[in-house]
Amino acid sequence: MPNRPSAKKIKELLAPLLTSERRRRIKYVLERRTKYVTLVLDDLYHQHNMSAVVRSCEAFGIQDVHVIELENRFVPTHGVSMGAQQWISIYRYSSISDCINVLKENGYRILAADPPEKALETKQKTSVSIDDLDIKEGRVAIVLGKELDGLDPRLRNQCDSVVYIPMKGFTESLNVSVTAALFLYQLRKKIDELPTQLWRLKDEEIEELEALWYVKSLKRGEQILNELLERRG
Amino acid sequence: MPNRPSAKKIKELLAPLLTSERRRRIKYVLERRTKYVTLVLDDLYHQHNMSAVVRSCEAFGIQDVHVIELENRFVPTHGVSMGAQQWISIYRYSSISDCINVLKENGYRILAADPPEKALETKQKTSVSIDDLDIKEGRVAIVLGKELDGLDPRLRNQCDSVVYIPMKGFTESLNVSVTAALFLYQLRKKIDELPTQLWRLKDEEIEELEALWYVKSLKRGEQILNELLERRG
Repeated sequence: MPNRPSAKKIKELLAPLLTSERRRRIKYVLERRTKYVTLVLDDLYHQHNMSAVVRSCEAFGIQDVHVIELENRFVPTHGVSMGAQQWISIYRYSSISDCINVLKENGYRILAADPPEKALETKQKTSVSIDDLDIKEGRVAIVLGKELDGLDPRLRNQCDSVVYIPMKGFTESLNVSVTAALFLYQLRKKIDELPTQLWRLKDEEIEELEALWYVKSLKRGEQILNELLERRG
Repeated sequence: MPNRPSAKKIKELLAPLLTSERRRRIKYVLERRTKYVTLVLDDLYHQHNMSAVVRSCEAFGIQDVHVIELENRFVPTHGVSMGAQQWISIYRYSSISDCINVLKENGYRILAADPPEKALETKQKTSVSIDDLDIKEGRVAIVLGKELDGLDPRLRNQCDSVVYIPMKGFTESLNVSVTAALFLYQLRKKIDELPTQLWRLKDEEIEELEALWYVKSLKRGEQILNELLERRG
């Protein structure tokens, strides 16, 4: 087996097999992709919710999702997610601290999606509504708790503060996939008001994803790529 | 059995059985309730989605939901909706035209939640993004299609125009309960910028709901109310 070729090489080999419309679409989507905002999903239980969250991330151009798998494995079903999981990056952790460490190393402010009264359990003991959240200061990770139980207190302790969705009824919390989408949509609007260089993927990240998406855009793309590489010797 | 008593009478009888905190909460929620915006759900299939939609409506103070039941009965499950259905009004129709007529009689502009390219199939052949939608002109009903199939073309034909959620990925549609919540949240923000008298419930609507919610706030509320009425003779 030859070594894994460069992204540039993969693109060169596969480009002739894709329509120009498809290549333009990939470029268009990549130019809007971002890691400036990310989600952390704490041990979700319902596949239906996992799938809907993945679909919303993809739709709003959020590239990374961090998944803590303590009791439940994160397996979005293809039907509900409409295949969205192949276009985003899912990072899996078997402990809370592993996940938090990675987020911190990557410069994320970590916000618990919780009602405002939970603010006291966070590091800064503050809360802000999603409408008032200012993301100009830097990258933001929104942490969502599991269905029914809500956020694990050990995870909330590691969050900087609380961010909440203002509500006006008796209902005190929303379905987790609904919550995720509301955050993503509002955050996406805030991102689009920032200078592009703050949130756009790096050129090399774009090239890597572009090559990956060329492969995924073809039926049996991996196999075709390997055949082309062998033919070249 | 005595005739159904007035809302005022019910409130008088039950108020002493509720905490002042509960009565204040009911008042607070009612002051934020509105029929200015409503949802139309076209024959949803998944109970999980029905429940999540109902919960979002309640959370954002949207009082009315209109449900067209052609093949599927609208039965939100208590668990996922967190009991939200008892605080909103669900209107059921067995035909598209019955539902449309009721909306028209009540002065709603009827908008199909659809991708912009479906605009040509609506009456005005126009589309607008949810961010640009202006609701100052009057009441708005958002029509959501069923999972997978999307909106019934016979229903889309009856809509004035298309309203869509701008997306940035490969995904072309979102989960229906996610879509509903995104519309409701954005519309709620727009409502809150309008003068209160445009969207607040009428005094008599508030009084009727207040009485109903007093009953629902008590365990076996109906039974207690009947006993109190009989005692009064």
